[in-house]
Amino acid sequence: MKNDHGLNDHLIWHEESRREVYRSRVLSVRDTTCRSPEGTSGVFTVIDGSDWAIVVPVIETVRGKEFVMVRQWRHGSRELSLEFPGGVFEPGEDPLEAAARELREETAYAPGTIRKIGEFSPNPAIMSNHVHIFLAGDLRPLDKQDLDDDEYVDVETVPVREVFQGLGRPPYVHALMASAYCLYLQAGGD
Amino acid sequence: MKNDHGLNDHLIWHEESRREVYRSRVLSVRDTTCRSPEGTSGVFTVIDGSDWAIVVPVIETVRGKEFVMVRQWRHGSRELSLEFPGGVFEPGEDPLEAAARELREETAYAPGTIRKIGEFSPNPAIMSNHVHIFLAGDLRPLDKQDLDDDEYVDVETVPVREVFQGLGRPPYVHALMASAYCLYLQAGGD
Repeated sequence: MKNDHGLNDHLIWHEESRREVYRSRVLSVRDTTCRSPEGTSGVFTVIDGSDWAIVVPVIETVRGKEFVMVRQWRHGSRELSLEFPGGVFEPGEDPLEAAARELREETAYAPGTIRKIGEFSPNPAIMSNHVHIFLAGDLRPLDKQDLDDDEYVDVETVPVREVFQGLGRPPYVHALMASAYCLYLQAGGD
Repeated sequence: MKNDHGLNDHLIWHEESRREVYRSRVLSVRDTTCRSPEGTSGVFTVIDGSDWAIVVPVIETVRGKEFVMVRQWRHGSRELSLEFPGGVFEPGEDPLEAAARELREETAYAPGTIRKIGEFSPNPAIMSNHVHIFLAGDLRPLDKQDLDDDEYVDVETVPVREVFQGLGRPPYVHALMASAYCLYLQAGGD
């Protein structure tokens, strides 16, 4: 089972063809035909979508270190979710600028500092896009949010420890917020 | 922006109708029409799929505490990914038994103890299913893996610290493994 010689050829599939089977405004679905390491053929469903940013915004308050978070309705799970802000990159947009823009628009805070702390496949089994994680600090409050017509977003600040302890249960239901929290820890957060 | 009175009616959407637009072996896609908190109407794409398990298997070795992990090709991101084992629930299957089964089949370790430590929406914006996270210990080695015909999986044990430090960069590209690691930490792991 264990690969002792550092080569992974016995694990690698090669794509032979792809065919789009569905497309909407936000994603497309394709059948991708691949050849297995042993030469057999298989067809797999893959979802293509845009890359997007999640921003972990840290603020110092009288109660200690807190995250700026957004509470919003999620149409997939049909529930309210308390999350780090974020959103989809516009075509050609610089990822760092996109992350700062999403933070400003959703929370009405502008970052004094912002840097990328990692990147994930949200679900590499079936999705081809990537989520880019950013850490933002030195936050400066703006006058107001700048939301799309179909966005309804409450802004809250939550103690870092409370978020960590809540992950995996409502309202901290969004798995990728835990992924972002991990990178916050890895980057030296506590 | 902040909701001061504890009510969230100003955030909640209501589903008016849904229409399936695509279905494959592993997922289906639907357009769901919803009414906004202000009464306007919007159409959103939602992906329906099976619930599944991710199992965090912890083993004591001469080198200290390690995770049992699986290295496999992922067709969405077209790369090798080093992950916790897991897999889809069979219809009617008990989640705990499904998690133990996936652990046995993929890694050839049977858990002496296994318990659920949390649950997430993998992406509540566009997906309706849930991923259930389990912690497994007292692992007993079996003779061999029990893989499907199209599964090619290497088993490796990796120091806990090395996994944490690697998250967000290859081969730790799978976001949901970081979500699972967070719940391992939350459950008292280190």
